[in-house]
Amino acid sequence: MNTSSNFRIACVMVGLPARGKTYVAYKVCRYLNWLGIKTQIFSVGNYRRQIAGLHPPPTFFDIHNQDGMKKRHEAAEIALNDMIKWYLEEDGIAGIFDATNSTKQDREWIHRELTKLDVQVLFIESICDDPKIIMSNIKDVKLSSPDYENLDPETATEDYMKRINHYEAFYETITEEDLTYIKLINVGSQYIINMIRGYLESRIVYYLMNLHTRPKRIWFSRHGESLYNLEDRIGGDSGLSPRGEQYALKLPEIVKQNIGDRPLTVWTSTMKRTIQTARHLDFPKKQWKALDELDTGVCDGMTYDEIAAKYPEDFARRDEDKFNYRYRGGESYRDLVLRLEPVIMDLERHENILIISHQATIRCMYAYFMGLSHEELPYARIPLHTIIELRPKAFSCEEKLYKVDVGAVDTFRPKGQGARVLKNDTFVCESVGASGEVSDGSKPILPISPIASKTLTNEA
Amino acid sequence: MNTSSNFRIACVMVGLPARGKTYVAYKVCRYLNWLGIKTQIFSVGNYRRQIAGLHPPPTFFDIHNQDGMKKRHEAAEIALNDMIKWYLEEDGIAGIFDATNSTKQDREWIHRELTKLDVQVLFIESICDDPKIIMSNIKDVKLSSPDYENLDPETATEDYMKRINHYEAFYETITEEDLTYIKLINVGSQYIINMIRGYLESRIVYYLMNLHTRPKRIWFSRHGESLYNLEDRIGGDSGLSPRGEQYALKLPEIVKQNIGDRPLTVWTSTMKRTIQTARHLDFPKKQWKALDELDTGVCDGMTYDEIAAKYPEDFARRDEDKFNYRYRGGESYRDLVLRLEPVIMDLERHENILIISHQATIRCMYAYFMGLSHEELPYARIPLHTIIELRPKAFSCEEKLYKVDVGAVDTFRPKGQGARVLKNDTFVCESVGASGEVSDGSKPILPISPIASKTLTNEA
Repeated sequence: MNTSSNFRIACVMVGLPARGKTYVAYKVCRYLNWLGIKTQIFSVGNYRRQIAGLHPPPTFFDIHNQDGMKKRHEAAEIALNDMIKWYLEEDGIAGIFDATNSTKQDREWIHRELTKLDVQVLFIESICDDPKIIMSNIKDVKLSSPDYENLDPETATEDYMKRINHYEAFYETITEEDLTYIKLINVGSQYIINMIRGYLESRIVYYLMNLHTRPKRIWFSRHGESLYNLEDRIGGDSGLSPRGEQYALKLPEIVKQNIGDRPLTVWTSTMKRTIQTARHLDFPKKQWKALDELDTGVCDGMTYDEIAAKYPEDFARRDEDKFNYRYRGGESYRDLVLRLEPVIMDLERHENILIISHQATIRCMYAYFMGLSHEELPYARIPLHTIIELRPKAFSCEEKLYKVDVGAVDTFRPKGQGARVLKNDTFVCESVGASGEVSDGSKPILPISPIASKTLTNEA
Repeated sequence: MNTSSNFRIACVMVGLPARGKTYVAYKVCRYLNWLGIKTQIFSVGNYRRQIAGLHPPPTFFDIHNQDGMKKRHEAAEIALNDMIKWYLEEDGIAGIFDATNSTKQDREWIHRELTKLDVQVLFIESICDDPKIIMSNIKDVKLSSPDYENLDPETATEDYMKRINHYEAFYETITEEDLTYIKLINVGSQYIINMIRGYLESRIVYYLMNLHTRPKRIWFSRHGESLYNLEDRIGGDSGLSPRGEQYALKLPEIVKQNIGDRPLTVWTSTMKRTIQTARHLDFPKKQWKALDELDTGVCDGMTYDEIAAKYPEDFARRDEDKFNYRYRGGESYRDLVLRLEPVIMDLERHENILIISHQATIRCMYAYFMGLSHEELPYARIPLHTIIELRPKAFSCEEKLYKVDVGAVDTFRPKGQGARVLKNDTFVCESVGASGEVSDGSKPILPISPIASKTLTNEA
């Protein structure tokens, strides 16, 4: 990334409660971490709960409640200090300060403290005056806050609305002309963008403009087993093996059974094996060069054994840091993430996309949605002849696997393993029928920060 | 690109005279054409001049001047009809309608006519209340308009200010909530973005947010002559030849003489030959994977003769349509343009960048700044051991070449030529000394459309 060693940015959320601030913070955090930019959320609500306890009454948030005001400011101060410590001691790059920051005075204080340290400050204000959106936000997210544990939903909603009213009494939307900010108005219907200068600010703003909150599903499949897979060779542009062809033939039925009649679009790479895999699917198709498999440079067409023999040092280095290892004349997983960034941006904009691509590329995209770290990413299990369905939710991503009963080699190579565990073995499908659903766990998100991961509300 | 066959978009400019609308139209036009999206500007001012003649008095633009109003509306109607004809008969994708479009009524009419035909309408309003910017815009651009031919600058400026006053009397900024628009306020200090939905809309908006108008220079150099260059081989990751090393050694001096003391940043690809070429330059450096040479797939490491012998049909196909030809398992120039898009976006944001890259990649970037067509792009002359300096201006790009007196092979292969014209010949430098300036022509822009290219004002 274009970030010099001293570059730091703070995304400071602004907005009334239940305006989706934490959702935005969470998405930006995940996106930047995926790009390799060290990012962490500092949620003032969590600090406030530590100071003032759970279940605060709505009047705690009244501007005339001096004790409440004092404790909330104290929480904000500790959170900001922790964020600053994180920049200085842990080489943090992008801190996200999640709170209502609802007055000019609050913002002036944060801006002053951060610019002192040469941290660029980007305010992200979420504005929403659609009561339906606010209510659904309260029901979907807020009632699961620790503040409302063991409370019946109706009482909790009423309580929460009262809390919002207290905030509304003194809320000041951003009008400070000299601040860098983006206002997100009514979930993407309008944006106001002020004084954006830096590269990273501009990336974040573009990302925010691509987000939408309509429910969506994405399906990933690797190409059917290829001739190179059979020979344990990497790279190349070989066609499908007979079993790969079988998988391609079965795909339309699997898609019909599991994806149904949605208006699907199929994206493939430009490589033979993905195009062949998609060819019996009767949907609009798009070929993306960006979905091509990781370029293995001089190792293209070799087996892992051959690589280990010819480039033993490289082979060992790759095992040490698989994410950053770049094949001679080829790519690293880190390169791949950058190459796939426009695909992710497009995926954020769209619903109902089936992507037929390759092991390494799907690992990168899967990692984005599932929040895998750069250490985990290159080892994600993306088996052949399996459709992975993802349903991104506000703060998690549900995953389902549809395995197809056509055998295939297993191309997974665990860390530290010289070559594949089982060579050319036949993968025995566990499922019964053509599309048995094997796993259906709603995977929780990975912790973003020790404190932020505990809960998802931010009001201080 | 993600444009289905029926997809069409119109960028409709909005703004008072001298607010930089035509500049924005021109930049968007060039950017989209470069990406492969057929784009054309329809400038109502040119139609108005055809109908009402040159040198209209300021009162022609008075809202109470019925004859003036009638002629101006007539001009807008013909322009819009021509644009519609262009969509329907010439498969146009992105029409740019350049006029003041300064009332709700104007915009409603355009929006209605275009949405009837399923054309997405993006209004681009340029707002500026800084008198200095407006005056410099009048002086730099407007006084060269055919409307003011043979008039002394002072009289022309006065006349133009009166014209603006007539527009100001009835100007209505966009407030129509249901329209898709971006407002550009005071050259990048603020943006308001409303109801952006589509992919291309979002790309254009992002591009506009990256534009700035500070004067800038960009320098391109290919790597020094490589060992593969000597053998006439393409691709690979070879190091520099002895003459290539000489070039690398001379670079710091050339840079000092011609680029001076500017705070330069050097971007290279990740390939040995560009990194080696840059290694004596004492400036901050950044390696971009996106700047790597065009991937020639299975032909990597071969000579053109070998390719012609082994893949004669491919070789012929490449000559027929070099821009679209994709090497087996490799890339086309079209792929390269997409890969380089983020680099162009970054170049728009920055000043004083020296890029050390490769023949094909520099061709693509050069084509963007010089407005070359996709037919011309793959044949652009980018010789070895030469620094190309570009100074982008509002409507043109100045070019200077600094040749360095270190011989190198000529890797240029003209259309239809089986292999290089001169093999391994030594390039004789025409310049005297280390950095003789060989060419210094301010190249005019290529015509954007038969009418638009004639002049650069748009008021109707």
